[in-house]
Amino acid sequence: MSLIEPRTLKGFRDYLPALMIPRERMLEKARQVFRSYGFSPIDTPALEYAEILTGKGGEESDRLLYQFKDHGGRDVALRFDLTVPLARFVAQHVSVLGTPFKRYHMGPVWRGENTSHGRYREFWQCDFDTIGTTSNAADIETALVINDLFEKLGFERFEIRVNSRLILNGVLEIHGLVDKAVPLLRALDKLQTQTNDKILTILQQQQNLAQNEKAKEGIRRLRELLSVAKAVGIPEGRIKIDLSIARGLDYYTGTIYETFLLDKPEIGSVCSGGRYDNLASLYTKQQLPGVGASLGLDRLLAAMEELKLLDQVSTPAPVLVVQFDAARLGDYQRIARVLRAEGIGVEVYPEARKIGQQLQYAEKRGFKVALIAGADEFAQGVWKIKQLATRTEATVPERDLVSSITPLFRRSERP
Amino acid sequence: MSLIEPRTLKGFRDYLPALMIPRERMLEKARQVFRSYGFSPIDTPALEYAEILTGKGGEESDRLLYQFKDHGGRDVALRFDLTVPLARFVAQHVSVLGTPFKRYHMGPVWRGENTSHGRYREFWQCDFDTIGTTSNAADIETALVINDLFEKLGFERFEIRVNSRLILNGVLEIHGLVDKAVPLLRALDKLQTQTNDKILTILQQQQNLAQNEKAKEGIRRLRELLSVAKAVGIPEGRIKIDLSIARGLDYYTGTIYETFLLDKPEIGSVCSGGRYDNLASLYTKQQLPGVGASLGLDRLLAAMEELKLLDQVSTPAPVLVVQFDAARLGDYQRIARVLRAEGIGVEVYPEARKIGQQLQYAEKRGFKVALIAGADEFAQGVWKIKQLATRTEATVPERDLVSSITPLFRRSERP
Repeated sequence: MSLIEPRTLKGFRDYLPALMIPRERMLEKARQVFRSYGFSPIDTPALEYAEILTGKGGEESDRLLYQFKDHGGRDVALRFDLTVPLARFVAQHVSVLGTPFKRYHMGPVWRGENTSHGRYREFWQCDFDTIGTTSNAADIETALVINDLFEKLGFERFEIRVNSRLILNGVLEIHGLVDKAVPLLRALDKLQTQTNDKILTILQQQQNLAQNEKAKEGIRRLRELLSVAKAVGIPEGRIKIDLSIARGLDYYTGTIYETFLLDKPEIGSVCSGGRYDNLASLYTKQQLPGVGASLGLDRLLAAMEELKLLDQVSTPAPVLVVQFDAARLGDYQRIARVLRAEGIGVEVYPEARKIGQQLQYAEKRGFKVALIAGADEFAQGVWKIKQLATRTEATVPERDLVSSITPLFRRSERP
Repeated sequence: MSLIEPRTLKGFRDYLPALMIPRERMLEKARQVFRSYGFSPIDTPALEYAEILTGKGGEESDRLLYQFKDHGGRDVALRFDLTVPLARFVAQHVSVLGTPFKRYHMGPVWRGENTSHGRYREFWQCDFDTIGTTSNAADIETALVINDLFEKLGFERFEIRVNSRLILNGVLEIHGLVDKAVPLLRALDKLQTQTNDKILTILQQQQNLAQNEKAKEGIRRLRELLSVAKAVGIPEGRIKIDLSIARGLDYYTGTIYETFLLDKPEIGSVCSGGRYDNLASLYTKQQLPGVGASLGLDRLLAAMEELKLLDQVSTPAPVLVVQFDAARLGDYQRIARVLRAEGIGVEVYPEARKIGQQLQYAEKRGFKVALIAGADEFAQGVWKIKQLATRTEATVPERDLVSSITPLFRRSERP
C-alpha cells in the first residue's frame, strides 16, 4: 500500500509543544484576568448558517469565507471572527442572559486569506465585551482589563492609547463638514506628544468644543477613565490619550483603545477595541450597546518569541525521574506522585535505558532537574538531584526532596 | 431592513456561561493532570486534506465527514476525531519531536451524525498518548493518569477497568479457532466478579495460558500495573481487572482501559483507551507503538450535572461590588483590585442603579458576596459584606476585608 503524504493545508499549521506550551499559558493567564473581573466564558459553534455570517464585513470578507453545503443541503460557513457570532448569540439568548452581560470568548476563526504576507487561514481570537450598558464604568474597566492582561503576561513596558470617537465626531459636527476631517485630524494629531492633562485642558479651552455635547461627553469620559486608573494604582504614563487613533470609521461610537509594546511598537496594536452603540441590529430590534476589546494572541506570541520572553522548552513538567532500575518503577512513580501533589510536574522516563540517553532526552526537552536513584540510594533513603543546566548534583534524603527542589524553579514554573 | 433569525445549525449548540464555566474548569483540571505527568499540549488544524481523513473509520465515518472544496479547489474536510490528526502529525514531525513523545490534545471535532439520539455534530475530545515506546511503564502511567484525572475532577466513586488484548489473543491462539471467541469470552466474563489477585492466579494456573507467550506477557503486564498502583497509593479496588472488556477488535493490541462512575454506570465508560502497535502506518514506514486514552468530556459534564456536582453559577467571580455612588468608582475598582491581587474574582456593577436591582442581579448570576459602601462607610473606612445565600451582613474595616471574605468561599473557588 502506498503511503499518504503527511502534510497540512497551505495557510494552516500544527502547533508543536515548544509553541503550544506558551500559547496555552497565555490563554490561561488571559482567562484568569477576564474571570477576575467577572467576565464569563461562552462558546459558539465553528459552523453557522451562511446567512448569519455573510455581508457583515463587506464583499472582501465574504470572499474569504469557508462556505459550503452541509449534509442537509444547508448553506453553512466557518466563522471568520468572534464578533458576528457574539451578536447572533446575544440576540438569541438575551432573555436568558440578562444585561449587563460580560463575556469572553477564545477560539479559532477561519479566513481563506492570501498567505503571501505570512498570514494564516486559521488563527485564534480572544475577545471580551460588556454588553447592555452605556455606563462609562464599563469603558474604564475595559482599560483596566487590558492593563492587567499585559501585566499578567509579564510585560512592563506597554502603553494603552485611548481616544473617544465622541471628540472626533464633535469636532466634525462643529465644523459642519466631513471633508474637513483630514486637516482636523492632523491638527489633533499634533497634540499627541503632550501629556494627558495638557491635552484635556487644551481641548476644554476650545470654546467650540466646550459647547458641543458630544465632545464634552467624550472629554468627561476620558477624564474619568484617567482618574479611576490613577485611583486604582495603574502606573503613571501607562494610559495615554492619543487623538490620532480612530479605529475604523463606522463601528465604534465612543471610547477606543489600542495597545502598544514599547519594545516592539512596529508590530502595531496588540489589543484593540472600543465602545459601540448597537451590537446586534441585524438579528434583533433590541438596542444592545457595549464596549470591548480583542487580544492579538498570535501577533503577541510572535513578539514574545522575538523579545525572548518565551522559555525554550518542549515539556510542561520540569522534573524527569530517570528510570535506572525497571524493577523500581513503583518507587519512581511514588516519588513522582509526592512531587505532583505539591504542584511540581514530573515525568518518569518510560524505559530503563542508559542514564546518558535519558539525560540527553531531558536536556533536549528542556527539563530543569533529573532525579536519580538506584539500589544504593534506595538503601540509604536518598535521591540524587541533578540540575541539567549546570550539571551539578546533590544527594538529599527523600523527606527533604520537595524543599530541595522547589527553589530550583522560577516562580512562574511553580504551581 | 428585515431581521435575520438568530439561530444555530441543527446538531450544534451555544455554550452559555452556566455550562461553559464548568466545562472550562474540567478542561483546566485535565490540563493540570496531563502536564503534571509531562504530557505536552499540541494543536492541529480543524481542516485537513480530505485524503488524510477519509478511509480511516470506514464508510460510515466517511459519510459523516464535513467535506468540501476550498478556495484553491483542494478537497478538504473537518477532522472527525483527534487520533487521525495525531497519526498525521507524528508522521510529519517525528524527527523534530523525538521519541518517546507524550502529548495531550483538546479540541472540537465534527461529525454530520443523525441528531435523533441527542448527539451533537460538534463536540470536544480530550486525548492523551505516549508514542514511541512499548514499555509497560507507559501502560501503567496511563492508568495512573486516568485515576488522577477523576480525582482532580472531584470524583471518589469510580472504577478503572483494565484488560489485555494479549490475554484474549493468547486464549484464541491456544484454541486455534477464532470462532470460539464468543464462548471463551463468556467463560472469561464469569471471572469478572472475582478480585484482581484471584483472576490473575486462576489465569496463571491455566496450563495452556502459562505456555502461551502472549498471554503470559499480558498477565505480567497487568500484574505489574496493579503492583505499581498499590505502591503509589491508589485506593484499593480503584483499578479492577475485567476480562470482558475488549474495545474494538482490530486497533488495540495490549492493555485496554475503561472507566466507570459507580454512581452512573449506565452512561458507560467515560475514559477509554489502550495500547496499539502502530499509530501512523498510513503516513510513514516508521513503526510507532503507543498507548493512550480519551476523556469523554461532554458525557462526563452531563453526568456531573445530573449528579449535582456542578455549581449553578453564571459568573466566574464570587464577589460583586455594588455601585452605590457613581462618584466613588475609583474606590470600587481600587478595592476590587486589592481582592483580585489575592486571587478573588470581583465584578464591579457598571451602573449606579438601585441597590435592590444590583443585588437581584448578583443573586441571579450566583455571586456569593456583595460588597457595599457609601459616604458613611467611606468616612469610617469600612465595607459592608453581604452574604447572598443567607442575606446576612457584616461590617468590617477595609484592612480586614481579605481575611473576612476568603473563608466564605469553598476551597475550589479560591485561587
